[in-house]
Amino acid sequence: MTTSPQPSTPLITELRQICGSANVLTHEDPATDLSPWEQDWRKRVKGRALAVVRPGNTSEVAAVVKACAAANTPIVPQGGNTGLVVGGVPNGSGTQIVLSMTRMNAVRAIDPANLTITVEAGCVLQNLQAAAEAAGFLFPLSLGAEGSCTIGGNLGTNAGGTQVVRYGNTRELCLGLEVVNAQGDIWHGLSGLRKDNTGYDLRNLMIGSEGTLGIITAATMKLYPQPAAQLTAWAAVPSMEAAVQLLGLAHQRLGPGLTGFEVMNQFALGLVDKHYPQLRVPLWQGTPWCVLLENSDSENEQHARSQFEALLEAALEQGYASDAVVAENLTQAKGLWHIRESITMAQAQEGLNIKHDISIPVSRIPAFVAETDALLAREVPGVRMVDFGHLGDGNLHYNVQAPEGADGQAFLREFEDKVNTWVFDQVKRFGGSISAEHGVGEQKVNKLPLYKDPTALAMMRAVKKALDPQNLLNPGRVLGK
Amino acid sequence: MTTSPQPSTPLITELRQICGSANVLTHEDPATDLSPWEQDWRKRVKGRALAVVRPGNTSEVAAVVKACAAANTPIVPQGGNTGLVVGGVPNGSGTQIVLSMTRMNAVRAIDPANLTITVEAGCVLQNLQAAAEAAGFLFPLSLGAEGSCTIGGNLGTNAGGTQVVRYGNTRELCLGLEVVNAQGDIWHGLSGLRKDNTGYDLRNLMIGSEGTLGIITAATMKLYPQPAAQLTAWAAVPSMEAAVQLLGLAHQRLGPGLTGFEVMNQFALGLVDKHYPQLRVPLWQGTPWCVLLENSDSENEQHARSQFEALLEAALEQGYASDAVVAENLTQAKGLWHIRESITMAQAQEGLNIKHDISIPVSRIPAFVAETDALLAREVPGVRMVDFGHLGDGNLHYNVQAPEGADGQAFLREFEDKVNTWVFDQVKRFGGSISAEHGVGEQKVNKLPLYKDPTALAMMRAVKKALDPQNLLNPGRVLGK
Repeated sequence: MTTSPQPSTPLITELRQICGSANVLTHEDPATDLSPWEQDWRKRVKGRALAVVRPGNTSEVAAVVKACAAANTPIVPQGGNTGLVVGGVPNGSGTQIVLSMTRMNAVRAIDPANLTITVEAGCVLQNLQAAAEAAGFLFPLSLGAEGSCTIGGNLGTNAGGTQVVRYGNTRELCLGLEVVNAQGDIWHGLSGLRKDNTGYDLRNLMIGSEGTLGIITAATMKLYPQPAAQLTAWAAVPSMEAAVQLLGLAHQRLGPGLTGFEVMNQFALGLVDKHYPQLRVPLWQGTPWCVLLENSDSENEQHARSQFEALLEAALEQGYASDAVVAENLTQAKGLWHIRESITMAQAQEGLNIKHDISIPVSRIPAFVAETDALLAREVPGVRMVDFGHLGDGNLHYNVQAPEGADGQAFLREFEDKVNTWVFDQVKRFGGSISAEHGVGEQKVNKLPLYKDPTALAMMRAVKKALDPQNLLNPGRVLGK
Repeated sequence: MTTSPQPSTPLITELRQICGSANVLTHEDPATDLSPWEQDWRKRVKGRALAVVRPGNTSEVAAVVKACAAANTPIVPQGGNTGLVVGGVPNGSGTQIVLSMTRMNAVRAIDPANLTITVEAGCVLQNLQAAAEAAGFLFPLSLGAEGSCTIGGNLGTNAGGTQVVRYGNTRELCLGLEVVNAQGDIWHGLSGLRKDNTGYDLRNLMIGSEGTLGIITAATMKLYPQPAAQLTAWAAVPSMEAAVQLLGLAHQRLGPGLTGFEVMNQFALGLVDKHYPQLRVPLWQGTPWCVLLENSDSENEQHARSQFEALLEAALEQGYASDAVVAENLTQAKGLWHIRESITMAQAQEGLNIKHDISIPVSRIPAFVAETDALLAREVPGVRMVDFGHLGDGNLHYNVQAPEGADGQAFLREFEDKVNTWVFDQVKRFGGSISAEHGVGEQKVNKLPLYKDPTALAMMRAVKKALDPQNLLNPGRVLGK
């Protein structure tokens, strides 16, 4: 093994004193590979860090921030580094430190009577889910990266996922935060309170700020009773209008039992069928859209099944669905979800594509999709639309696949910017958001001034300047330079 | 009738040009009584306004703010003026204008498929509830003042109420805002989106800021399916520990069907029985506490009743309750709620008292109540505790009644400050909040520095200064001078 490298700057020396030498990694040691912290998840951007710093507790985070503030060195907070908008990796300057939170991964406390769990920011989402389950509760946040993303990252980006229709985004699941601010002071806000009207809502200001206003070190999250039964159904629907009507009926019939409502177009499902035929996609061939519904029941499976079947019967009768199946058991249910989750991989197998994570008021989605599909078909002959997403939340992953046989790179060069503009202009026209659940990061930072209300943007800038006057925390993200 | 008074200042002239003379009321016209806007709801404070300004639309609000900013004249936004912490009336200086939002009371739109309703800030809560109901939906915010409070005030104070255990506070019911900021610019943020991660959460920053960061002019609120049935039960419980256990069981058995869980101590119910014997308080004589439970069901009354009865049977078996009744019909259910809501009036009938609106993690409430009751009994011989509130949210109205036969005024003089300090110190020790659902206003502004995390307070001050550098909006409230 090599000996510990000599510190290059007084700041690095100080950071090693704070966190221990083993927890401050730099490029000076040739044996140390920093690329896991420097490379973004989608492998689009690779930055260069001055150092990767891995604090072990909140006091160390505070000391690190104070040291960096004194040295005027920017800090990029990072969790599991699974972000999709380039918000958690350093830029290429070699002057920023990555503050990796993964050593702070403890479950600090579970309070069953208060229905809360308190965890450190670096706790992996799946471990948080497991701790809740072991205590007899449900922590409902669930998303593709749950095996490696951290709750701190989920909070920083206000992650969504598949159960938002019932439980809300990460924001709605949080009751309290512990935060180190840009001055290196600790805000002890780990309240498990459901009501607290003593001033401004700093908790929600921090959530979704992508590490630009403060560093979340721990959080108190809500727990829910585990459902007694959970059933999954799959329905063929004749149009997007019908899908929206089915959603309304499901809200009415299942009330809060409706915990998932996903929509997928025929082409998306065809890609799954083509690249993963073993998954046996049901009902997709004769219909433009399929939906996946989940029903969680606080009583028992029989009750859930009879409710679910009654809903689907009514939907068939009213023409909102043309065919439907309810999974007979957990394996079948998981199989249906697996099909839904395989769309992203199937797209990648098929070739390069342009992704969007947009939201639109549910009522306007049918018109949005019809108009925007038609616009793109006109402008990009042969374009193939991979439309899917969380219809229950008005959130579409509205993705654009190159025409069959096209050179993917050439397609992106010619069309990526144009397609983004066409789609985002339509989103704005329909009162939607150009980032539903992934955030802004670096990727959409130049789009925000074009699509965000200018008064809101001015207020955001004022808040950033007030809380981080040195522009120390994740500079350039969300608001740009 | 008198003729229109002459404008006293260039600002008043300008405000009359903006809103029309009839909508700018001043003391110069002796026939005009401004006390409805100057006197706080609990009649503890009467201010004096420079003028009461009643804008008719958002552009007028923006113009009023610009005019006031130019004249450096503070603005106190006001809705139904039902606030409990002196946050919506002017101070006594005669230099502040009251911006009364009650003329802006339109329901702008209902979007059934998106489950949203967009209303102006001055819409009375009861009218909003009625508009939702007429469209076949539920708007679940419900509180004592609903016949006169406005949704703008509910948002400004993040009002709670009786269904928070299921639907959350006003904050959780809001999807978008239209706001005039301190510069007189309009933020068009009336999104009906359930997911929008394009930057900082200004919506929640405005909600609960009591008009000190911006003026809410309209809001898009969530709608819910109406429950198919709603049942109310009343149970005698042997201890606060048992009440907390019953709450846990109710969460587990009813899941999201649990829409209300109120607790009341024997003395509180005894006061209702004494002053309103016609209300026939059930089960209170042999038990220290009673709870009121509400179960909302998306199926039908029979289903709700069998679930509810099974819950109460299990509670009796496990000793969490000693006796229980389920209301047989709506009249009986309303009667039970009426008893709960009559506690405040019965207290007033009994004499002067010291009120607290506190929250504590649910798990710690039994110990808090036991310790704090004992502390007060030691310090104030003969003290009578009126303990009741929304146990499901950890929110207690922990009120202190003068000893029997005591002179109420003398009691307040001697004990009010001391009792507040004893109670708030205990709240802090138990990780609670000194204002759960009423806000800070002027009443608790001096308490905040004693009980709020200092880092949070510093960040709040920075945000206020950034967004309202002139200290124009409701100055002195929330953060003091």
